[in-house]
Amino acid sequence: MNQILVETSARHVHVTQQDLETLFGAGYELHVKKMLSQPGQFASEERVDVVGPKKTLSRVSILGPIRPATQIELSLTDARSIGVDAPIRESGDVAGSGACKLVGPCGEVEVKEGVIAAKRHIHMTPEDAHEFGIEDKAIVSVRINTPGRSLIFGDVVVRVSPKFSLAMHIDTDESNAACAAGNVMGEIVP
Amino acid sequence: MNQILVETSARHVHVTQQDLETLFGAGYELHVKKMLSQPGQFASEERVDVVGPKKTLSRVSILGPIRPATQIELSLTDARSIGVDAPIRESGDVAGSGACKLVGPCGEVEVKEGVIAAKRHIHMTPEDAHEFGIEDKAIVSVRINTPGRSLIFGDVVVRVSPKFSLAMHIDTDESNAACAAGNVMGEIVP
Repeated sequence: MNQILVETSARHVHVTQQDLETLFGAGYELHVKKMLSQPGQFASEERVDVVGPKKTLSRVSILGPIRPATQIELSLTDARSIGVDAPIRESGDVAGSGACKLVGPCGEVEVKEGVIAAKRHIHMTPEDAHEFGIEDKAIVSVRINTPGRSLIFGDVVVRVSPKFSLAMHIDTDESNAACAAGNVMGEIVP
Repeated sequence: MNQILVETSARHVHVTQQDLETLFGAGYELHVKKMLSQPGQFASEERVDVVGPKKTLSRVSILGPIRPATQIELSLTDARSIGVDAPIRESGDVAGSGACKLVGPCGEVEVKEGVIAAKRHIHMTPEDAHEFGIEDKAIVSVRINTPGRSLIFGDVVVRVSPKFSLAMHIDTDESNAACAAGNVMGEIVP
């Protein structure tokens, strides 16, 4: 009952329509490669280079649909490797976050703020939240039992919306720390 | 009383005298760059490239003194990026572990087994163990409280020896998952 699918989010980029057109050309639209667990969200065919002062992450996947703000979600390992800041933020909270350059086949975008490390979170519907007895923005702990790297993640933020589907999202550092590659289950614990 | 210094181990290599000489030349000896928390252990001036099928990690630090077996300690992020296996193992337990190539200024070594992701662990003296009420090889959980990424690591192995100094070691993935860069403190919890 209490089990939640834990999904690992690899590094990815969200873009505005304007930035998409700068990167890929006027009137460009994303092409769906694969639908994701959250309704309407998809991995696109399109990829961009994420350029920092020290290094470049090549061919990073753009997730769709387009967003009101361009946002680059990196692990802290990624951020350190290319030499950019990535404060731990909820998606959409990009004010004062890290800077980088995006390079596409038709142009470049200097992103002044938008690089974050995603705060670990659980998407759930209002019905799920009612069942778990928790509310939007609650901070919970989630136990993940894996052979050799079991752990309990604290500081997991709950996000409730009728548009969501029940799933916990962690980044690749967090996933590796728990040996949670593939789809494992987590449990909210007191 | 219950607090333990948590140190982040970046990727590194241990080498046999024979492999050191293949990499750096006959009769070569490591040069101490910086002593580490564990008595007698040091980061050396020497660095080697760790080559996998997909990519190379350049200039990885060799830790001294020399060991009876060559061992490459990577994060799972590192291992995936260069395309090698890195099973989660205690230091020294390299049978059947991952393969890679090491490249030094004077030669190369094909390492057939030796690539691991270190199992998170606590070094302590017999006196520490007595104080904590635990024994060598005990598996414990350690709580780390950081702003935004608190967590409790399970599956932490305790290693007791009079040659050790009290410290917990985690890799960079684990450190990032806890935002534990720099020196933070952990607490053994039930």
